[in-house]
Amino acid sequence: MADIAELQALIGAKVVLKAEDAYLAKHMVDTGVTAPADAKPLGVAYPSTTEEVSRILAWCNANDVPVVPQGGMTGLVGGGVPTSTPSLILSMERMRGVEEIDAGSAAMTVRAGTTLAEVQAAADQAGFLFPLDLGGRSAHIAGNASTNAGGNRVLRFGMMRDLILGVEAVLADGTVISSLNKVIKNNTGYDLKQLFIGSEGTLGVITRLVLKLYPKPRSQCLGLVALDDYPAVVEFLGRCREGLSGQLSAFEVMWPGFYRTGTVALGRKPPIDLGYGVYVLVETMGSDPDTDQARFESVIDAAIEAGAVKEAVVARSGQQTKEIWAIRDCPGEFTAAGHNPQLGFDVSIPTAKIGDFAAEVDALLKSHWPEVKALYFGHAADGNLHVSVHLDDKVGTEEEMDDLIYGLVGRWRGVISAEHGIGVHKRPYLKHSRSEAELALMRTLKRAMDPKGILNPGKVI
Amino acid sequence: MADIAELQALIGAKVVLKAEDAYLAKHMVDTGVTAPADAKPLGVAYPSTTEEVSRILAWCNANDVPVVPQGGMTGLVGGGVPTSTPSLILSMERMRGVEEIDAGSAAMTVRAGTTLAEVQAAADQAGFLFPLDLGGRSAHIAGNASTNAGGNRVLRFGMMRDLILGVEAVLADGTVISSLNKVIKNNTGYDLKQLFIGSEGTLGVITRLVLKLYPKPRSQCLGLVALDDYPAVVEFLGRCREGLSGQLSAFEVMWPGFYRTGTVALGRKPPIDLGYGVYVLVETMGSDPDTDQARFESVIDAAIEAGAVKEAVVARSGQQTKEIWAIRDCPGEFTAAGHNPQLGFDVSIPTAKIGDFAAEVDALLKSHWPEVKALYFGHAADGNLHVSVHLDDKVGTEEEMDDLIYGLVGRWRGVISAEHGIGVHKRPYLKHSRSEAELALMRTLKRAMDPKGILNPGKVI
Repeated sequence: MADIAELQALIGAKVVLKAEDAYLAKHMVDTGVTAPADAKPLGVAYPSTTEEVSRILAWCNANDVPVVPQGGMTGLVGGGVPTSTPSLILSMERMRGVEEIDAGSAAMTVRAGTTLAEVQAAADQAGFLFPLDLGGRSAHIAGNASTNAGGNRVLRFGMMRDLILGVEAVLADGTVISSLNKVIKNNTGYDLKQLFIGSEGTLGVITRLVLKLYPKPRSQCLGLVALDDYPAVVEFLGRCREGLSGQLSAFEVMWPGFYRTGTVALGRKPPIDLGYGVYVLVETMGSDPDTDQARFESVIDAAIEAGAVKEAVVARSGQQTKEIWAIRDCPGEFTAAGHNPQLGFDVSIPTAKIGDFAAEVDALLKSHWPEVKALYFGHAADGNLHVSVHLDDKVGTEEEMDDLIYGLVGRWRGVISAEHGIGVHKRPYLKHSRSEAELALMRTLKRAMDPKGILNPGKVI
Repeated sequence: MADIAELQALIGAKVVLKAEDAYLAKHMVDTGVTAPADAKPLGVAYPSTTEEVSRILAWCNANDVPVVPQGGMTGLVGGGVPTSTPSLILSMERMRGVEEIDAGSAAMTVRAGTTLAEVQAAADQAGFLFPLDLGGRSAHIAGNASTNAGGNRVLRFGMMRDLILGVEAVLADGTVISSLNKVIKNNTGYDLKQLFIGSEGTLGVITRLVLKLYPKPRSQCLGLVALDDYPAVVEFLGRCREGLSGQLSAFEVMWPGFYRTGTVALGRKPPIDLGYGVYVLVETMGSDPDTDQARFESVIDAAIEAGAVKEAVVARSGQQTKEIWAIRDCPGEFTAAGHNPQLGFDVSIPTAKIGDFAAEVDALLKSHWPEVKALYFGHAADGNLHVSVHLDDKVGTEEEMDDLIYGLVGRWRGVISAEHGIGVHKRPYLKHSRSEAELALMRTLKRAMDPKGILNPGKVI
């Protein structure tokens, strides 16, 4: 292993060597995964330009030093956490700021380490909406890109992949690939940016992005409805898609245990009584405050008349809107609700089958641990189901539960990671969702683009 | 070179050998490019299953026989036309048909050789919209995928890439990569389907696709407006994006020469007089026939009041809708309008700059050939400009004009192919839109996935 002091000489004070453990602490853990005790990084580099990232990677590649790129460390699967290999941590936190907003192209150019919250605020200030939204808004925008982040409004605006027009990234050998495209239509050869989106820093390090902006909505309508069962949810989703075409911005399904946790377990009065089979939060964002509310209510009224929806509440104020969203956002309050520690699952199954799948997960868990407390909720329109299992003495180990659930996902030919990526945590289970031929092709790409394997080793594949 | 009769023995009558020139004719030309005279294919294979495609490619790879995958041959850049290398033509026309429509997931599984028209009709019959639409509806759906087709409704529904959930493709060595995903959220490792979309058959042969379906719109509103200049178009686009959020489905800009060609040159009365600086066709698709028309007109009225729009016509009948669209669709009638033969350009420039760029193209052409007749039109919201130059004795050769225009696109850092791909025709000009580092990475991918270079040689890179 080369002497990393050479790198310091090359880059200067932006490389911190032989760091103390206390200093390193924030670089050793994300929201979900802690680095193993024997992971001792050689140092942390804080580049502030693409050129510095290029020089760091070129040196690491020449000297066989593995690199762990880090964003805001808000991930849940350990994508940015060092593994046991000695490595250099590459923190993007100094490469920060919005470079340009091109209003005519509805496009924003931004540096890797800018937080999602900063991107949202900059778009808002320029009169636009950047629609990606999720709980961890201190995430770096390049972290959102390299994990292809999802969130609540995917059914309207797509995943992070769909919100990216251009990418600048640095390859393992330091080559800068600058594809900072701003136009929607660009068919000039291979779409290289796709390689860097969702590959969790294993094929290159994203340094800048061009993001797609949307017009700010002028109206927001929100409802909470209760239904008998999941087939009624699918029927109601069809009505919303058709009747609210182009405006539907959230369709969040909550099973009874989750709904109870988000309301009475937190001391809140439920807007609709407990006791129904399933609850759905439905939201639109539109351009015409005068007519959007009436249209929204007419779709819900028609669903009630048809018998699909049993009870409904429509928000009449900003306060009511907040209260309804707070039920869906209760995972942020799981501790107060007595549902912590917990083990979360983030899987996808075709929309029509989510109800049967959730029932089978519950039956399987209960067959092993009869007193298990599991909560079910998800973005049904995207096929995305979240399961949260309370970690108490009535259930098995995390590994036992992972094996059980991901094995079931595999048998259903589902997706073991819908929106949180693979990282280190889900790597052993990737085979349940991808064939041997697919895994082999991933390895071919990895070998071709990073022949020495220095980029985020031990992650994804 | 191996004896291709071996392949016939392996696959049977679906491989046609030593074909007559007359029989071969339809395989030697697409809408824009004819194969060179010395291109003598060894034969044509017509597989009807993925397994047959796999066996054919494995044999060709083992025997160093280049393969030219062919779709509906409606492209304009020769992506499916054999070059001078002896090669096997791989026609996908027998691999046809819709396999499944999953209404709950709003997803359709379809075989490669199904035509775009058939896909649109099948979606319609199942109560959905498949939104990709373009002139050549006899295109194969896998051809649309492998060229990442665009069209008129990209600003609302995205490019073909955005309409694809899953891909099954066969690699050069015959390995089947089956990623027939149906869910929106899938972050299980690298998104392999992106490799096959837009790479024009050079990295693999697409055999099946899972397509995203949309609810059928219940309303359609159409208007034609006249404005003084291009800056007013950008202002009007901002109004439409904001005021018709989520419903805007087409925004087609036409410069005066094009507008004259689509109206008086074809003996039609122009809905708005000639003489304005620029014309825009604007369309919405919505879900509420009762209020959508009023909303549409209020946005146009506000633009008139603000002085951005000088004159406007709103379609009041299906007949009027057809008449206005016919103006924009006049490239199909260029012969009748006396604008044939012509040389077309399909480029992208950031939306705000299209007006200045079009003016510079015109000035440049006129500085070389003062009597040149060039028409300008495009999908402004996507940054996409089309230029059509009349090929008469008053202009230079195609090559001279290509050099001139693509050189200018390069100086503007624009995109030499917005929606028609690269094929053979634009390959020499790719350097104007992509850096040496990007081209090198494309070659790295090509070498990794097709080490013997048998897949569609001479195309793209």
